[in-house]
Amino acid sequence: MEGDKKFHVVVLGAGFGGLTFCKHFHAADARITLVDRTNHHLFQPLLYQVATCGLSAPDIAQPIRSILSEREDITVLLDKVTGFDLAQKKVLLDKNSLDFDFLVLAMGGHTGYFGHPEWEQFAPGLKSLDDALRIRSHVLLAFEKAENEASTAEHDKLMTIVVVGGGPTGVELAGSFAELTRTVLSHDFRRIDPTQARIILIEGAPRILSHLPPELSASAQRQLEALGVHVRTSTSVKNIRENEVELASGEIIHAGNILWAAGVSATSLTKKLGAELDKAGRVKVNPDLSLPNHPEIFAIGDMALVLEKDGKPVPGVSPAAMQMGKHVAKIIENEIRLGAKAPARPPFKYWDKGTMATIGRSAAVAWVGRFKFSGLLAWLAWLFIHLIFLIGFRSRVAVFFNWTYSYFSYKRSARIITYLPPEPSDEKSG
Amino acid sequence: MEGDKKFHVVVLGAGFGGLTFCKHFHAADARITLVDRTNHHLFQPLLYQVATCGLSAPDIAQPIRSILSEREDITVLLDKVTGFDLAQKKVLLDKNSLDFDFLVLAMGGHTGYFGHPEWEQFAPGLKSLDDALRIRSHVLLAFEKAENEASTAEHDKLMTIVVVGGGPTGVELAGSFAELTRTVLSHDFRRIDPTQARIILIEGAPRILSHLPPELSASAQRQLEALGVHVRTSTSVKNIRENEVELASGEIIHAGNILWAAGVSATSLTKKLGAELDKAGRVKVNPDLSLPNHPEIFAIGDMALVLEKDGKPVPGVSPAAMQMGKHVAKIIENEIRLGAKAPARPPFKYWDKGTMATIGRSAAVAWVGRFKFSGLLAWLAWLFIHLIFLIGFRSRVAVFFNWTYSYFSYKRSARIITYLPPEPSDEKSG
Repeated sequence: MEGDKKFHVVVLGAGFGGLTFCKHFHAADARITLVDRTNHHLFQPLLYQVATCGLSAPDIAQPIRSILSEREDITVLLDKVTGFDLAQKKVLLDKNSLDFDFLVLAMGGHTGYFGHPEWEQFAPGLKSLDDALRIRSHVLLAFEKAENEASTAEHDKLMTIVVVGGGPTGVELAGSFAELTRTVLSHDFRRIDPTQARIILIEGAPRILSHLPPELSASAQRQLEALGVHVRTSTSVKNIRENEVELASGEIIHAGNILWAAGVSATSLTKKLGAELDKAGRVKVNPDLSLPNHPEIFAIGDMALVLEKDGKPVPGVSPAAMQMGKHVAKIIENEIRLGAKAPARPPFKYWDKGTMATIGRSAAVAWVGRFKFSGLLAWLAWLFIHLIFLIGFRSRVAVFFNWTYSYFSYKRSARIITYLPPEPSDEKSG
Repeated sequence: MEGDKKFHVVVLGAGFGGLTFCKHFHAADARITLVDRTNHHLFQPLLYQVATCGLSAPDIAQPIRSILSEREDITVLLDKVTGFDLAQKKVLLDKNSLDFDFLVLAMGGHTGYFGHPEWEQFAPGLKSLDDALRIRSHVLLAFEKAENEASTAEHDKLMTIVVVGGGPTGVELAGSFAELTRTVLSHDFRRIDPTQARIILIEGAPRILSHLPPELSASAQRQLEALGVHVRTSTSVKNIRENEVELASGEIIHAGNILWAAGVSATSLTKKLGAELDKAGRVKVNPDLSLPNHPEIFAIGDMALVLEKDGKPVPGVSPAAMQMGKHVAKIIENEIRLGAKAPARPPFKYWDKGTMATIGRSAAVAWVGRFKFSGLLAWLAWLFIHLIFLIGFRSRVAVFFNWTYSYFSYKRSARIITYLPPEPSDEKSG
């Protein structure tokens, strides 16, 4: 299966960019090796639903091998990238090293803390299934602890959830936690009242969802406030300690649950490429998405800084990553097939299909071309589009079923503490 | 909600026994406190399906609070039992202590290693959701490692799964792993052939499923062998080391995956009760299930040793635990309601409704009264009964959907590595 082909294309990362590349790339003379450090493709736009008990992990993750099972020309490796030897056209992995003719960098990003990596332990971000399961267990456990606790000061702390960052992920997390506490948990405790939980969304800019037009930001804020979320804009975080957020004003918020949704950086491996990076660690690529001086290497998705005609960077969203994957697939395919006769490489053009963010039950905002929606219509559009883009028949049906069930029952299917944070003793009891 | 009632009933454990007690116990003068160290009731008979990628954790677990949400007389506490002060009628918990008038001990058991607790690290058992998620990730990861590995000796080791113990759990695990490797994974690798994986089931007794009639044991063994499982009866394990099982004969099996399904002990907290215990740590109870000299304390389910008329112990299965829960609920209810006028306590009688074990797709054995079934009919009966007894409408529909999907697609819905065993470095890449 391996071996005889003339060209070896190595793809690093099986997110939206890497997987779309694989799906669009077909050349009889080439084989692909796809490397990822997890065994699954993750539908990141629904990750916040795993964190907030709405969906289970397998609902939004598909085994990469299973997705590409029919593609005999693709070898999938679960491995970790450790470095590059670009002069030798080599990728260094934890357990292997791979020689490539073409390299597609699609490793995405991780949560960025603006130069404060020490905040991560107190305010986890949401990028992987493990992150989501940890957040879910942590928040559910905080309510359990409050029920066991006599002191009301301690109740208030445990029942406070601070979300830092008013972008789409922050808005979705805050809205979904507000619903969880207001409806799902409302009748299940005897000593505490979960509807009294404080959900605080903190945003440094003057408005949330600042990539959307101001009227949609205002609408999103109204919808969040209707759910009981305290939205605090123009509010900067100065420091984060255990169970404490210190604001620039000096105010201290005591919170048993602090979640970070304020920044994404490209994987730190971009530093090993010897290429120019922007502040967020993204690689500055040529208009065709190749690395300067390396026409055989491309960077796509959240790793790449691509400037549009107006000088703005293409946003770090999944449709952009998918469009880049398709763009690079066509370029490499042409060059392998046609050699010197291949057409000149076209520049990448981002086609913005619209942006949306969901806030809660029947609450969302959407901006598509000249049209702006809020409320029920935006929410239905959001549901529909997310179901369509979920990979795999089973996931689509399972997610549709879970959503329908939650909508009518006011329950959530994944209210299960599995990933218990390590505790001193672990003997089975009770 | 708490406080005014005359009687306080403390129930330790929200498994089949404890939960059935709660559902059947109703007394206006009493309140219940139910303590469990997890937040969910677990449908243990399907735990092996979470370990073998067939179901996701939330499919077989329901939040205890949600099940008992309507019962204003029940307070649920997530806490760990640390000891007892029976003279003072007090249960000691990690974060609280509880005074009781009646105490129901329903804490179940944990995996027992016949005096070799050091084997646990190399051969995990299957009692909790965390166990199941860990086993799932470990086995999936072993196949991933084999695909990355050049040495064929290493392949053989990584692709060997040894299951120790030929009871229902061992048979179900071995059959389900055989199906996983023979069908689900068969086309997804390029360097290794998962259908060549060795699944070895080891049983010390002369036949597997020794609680069933010999012809059903023989049928189960034939069905397992048809799936490719090596069944080794009359084979004892002498020692277990990392990736090595040493048999009594001196033979050593090299296996990257060793699972322990050979023994269950009662929780070690029974030692703190000052009552007589059997070898497996179970409390020897009176015929009414109360503790000798403690008419106000009952032990039910896997914690209790109850002898039937023929001198055999009631088996440690969920129907027995549920029947015991109901029995004790009636006794305590009568005594609270009628006081001195309560009828004499009846002895507990176990009603054996039959036994079954599933082996794989269309393969199972069942023994109900005078009837013995094997194959498709037993399998359909197994599916039907397990769906009926699953708690919660959502779980029933979700599990039915997952099974139907797997049956027709030969895929499994939960082939996701989430619970990664701790590794030295955890930086995001690939």
